[in-house]
Amino acid sequence: MTQSREVHLVNRPDATPLPSDFQVVTVDVPAPGAGEVQVRNSWMSVDPYMRGRMRDVKSYSAPFTLNAAMTGGAVGEVVISNDPTLQVGDLVQSMNGWREVFNAPAATVQKVSATIPAQAYLGVAGMPGLTAYVGLLHMASLKDGDVVFVSAAAGAVGQIVCQIAKLKGHKVIASAGGPEKCAWLKSIGVDEVIDYRAESNLTKALLKAAPEGIDVYFENVGGTHMDAALAAANPFARFALCGMIAGYNNPEGASVNNLMMAVGKSIRLQGFIVSNHAAQYGADFQRDMVGWISSGQIKWNETIENGIENAVTAFLKLFTGENTGKMLVKLS
Amino acid sequence: MTQSREVHLVNRPDATPLPSDFQVVTVDVPAPGAGEVQVRNSWMSVDPYMRGRMRDVKSYSAPFTLNAAMTGGAVGEVVISNDPTLQVGDLVQSMNGWREVFNAPAATVQKVSATIPAQAYLGVAGMPGLTAYVGLLHMASLKDGDVVFVSAAAGAVGQIVCQIAKLKGHKVIASAGGPEKCAWLKSIGVDEVIDYRAESNLTKALLKAAPEGIDVYFENVGGTHMDAALAAANPFARFALCGMIAGYNNPEGASVNNLMMAVGKSIRLQGFIVSNHAAQYGADFQRDMVGWISSGQIKWNETIENGIENAVTAFLKLFTGENTGKMLVKLS
Repeated sequence: MTQSREVHLVNRPDATPLPSDFQVVTVDVPAPGAGEVQVRNSWMSVDPYMRGRMRDVKSYSAPFTLNAAMTGGAVGEVVISNDPTLQVGDLVQSMNGWREVFNAPAATVQKVSATIPAQAYLGVAGMPGLTAYVGLLHMASLKDGDVVFVSAAAGAVGQIVCQIAKLKGHKVIASAGGPEKCAWLKSIGVDEVIDYRAESNLTKALLKAAPEGIDVYFENVGGTHMDAALAAANPFARFALCGMIAGYNNPEGASVNNLMMAVGKSIRLQGFIVSNHAAQYGADFQRDMVGWISSGQIKWNETIENGIENAVTAFLKLFTGENTGKMLVKLS
Repeated sequence: MTQSREVHLVNRPDATPLPSDFQVVTVDVPAPGAGEVQVRNSWMSVDPYMRGRMRDVKSYSAPFTLNAAMTGGAVGEVVISNDPTLQVGDLVQSMNGWREVFNAPAATVQKVSATIPAQAYLGVAGMPGLTAYVGLLHMASLKDGDVVFVSAAAGAVGQIVCQIAKLKGHKVIASAGGPEKCAWLKSIGVDEVIDYRAESNLTKALLKAAPEGIDVYFENVGGTHMDAALAAANPFARFALCGMIAGYNNPEGASVNNLMMAVGKSIRLQGFIVSNHAAQYGADFQRDMVGWISSGQIKWNETIENGIENAVTAFLKLFTGENTGKMLVKLS
């Protein structure tokens, strides 16, 4: 019988997750039933939002079950098909990540084209790309002349936000940690890059990079980044609140002191979850993004760990900022 | 020659303003020129936003000039008119507060009707009333079924927010400091009143008052009030950010820890300054508010200090919460 390794959450972390909060378990995968396919995952995604699912609290996505395989984005190849809609060899996307092989009803996986690299469906052409698109264009209501500030700009979402803003003709200021990420951002055309680890005063650095002030802020970090953005914002600025990774493991890390500036400057802060907007903007996104990739206007970077045994390592690196671009785990 | 007393700002306060930061000065008021009127103020307004104007920083309203009369809302009676558009005895509204008598071009003051009490033009029928109206109905996009939370609810703006929400059929939770204010809020029909001074955990108190969660928050306070509102908010809640008085004298007092909840709950926070919306919503407001006052659906409370020599005292009481309803200074 086919075997698969999968990653279980065995303990709900209070602060930064530890490797001991997880366990890699080997399971037997029986033959798929009628109407089912068996899929061998090629790639799985690790994303910051998964940290929230490790808590046992009501949230926008259900908490992970303890001592069961976690879930998340994955792309893989159909190896057995008991359904006429899918053939062996088809590339499919699913939420059955954190495992090597799985059976599922054919209708619960989505066939994707092999014209772009498979892992792009977990990044630029997938949820992170849609997040960038919806956040910048719709939540922050990007308009002509806006100066755009992006935090965690070298991450899976941030790198796409920067490039969409650039291809639409905006001045873009990006913040990232370390010289390697900053060099990557320069290489994709970002106007001003701030290495926040090298700055003792982020507000000052931002005001120097954008003396005219910022009109749009794409928020991935929180804490001092939010305070700097509030301080540098022009009247009627719009902030898309996508994530605040500084506070995921330590809520104190996301403490904000300048929120009262939002009153005097008439700032709008819009929190959002991309899944609420996929139906409305998904088709526009697919059309625009395929065009931008084809014309070479959107590039991407990725950081890869190999093997399910390194999936937890890959996840934990999200919180120490060791990824440039999308963090991925190659499974086969 | 007519004499007038006026209040000067003589020092820009760093933290809580002190009486010594102000000086009452007696000046001569000459006869008004051609096209001018002379007005004796009956009432002047003190408002929290004036604290911001004491700082020498770029903001939505210009800083007060040192060693000159401050400005602010006032209503008074024309005592000399050199312009055909205004008659002696007319009631006029102006921004020439913080003084007893002034000359001004007739076009810079606004004639108002004496069918409602004069001081209402500084409160329920003036800027605070319009702030409540615009903030609740337009910034927070109030819609059927919304549960509404209001902080500083017994203040000039808060008391009107509560009543507009009630007359439109909503459940309203109000926060105020002390039993007297809470009793007033109960008397105007607020469903649940939280005396925040008597609560060690505001979030717990709010969740008890609104176990179904809140959909709209009208923010006047900041700090722990904002954190409680974020914690109790339902998905897609809308916050109107009108003021954050907790931080006006001490920016640390407005520190917010829960802002990251705005991401998962898709909350919209909209800062606003009422003057940016007066042209758009002023006429609707006047029509609705006159109707609500006439039908007895809107009541108001006010706290009065007498004489220009007590204007600074009245202003300082805003920050210790000693006013119930609109804080006013009666000048004649």
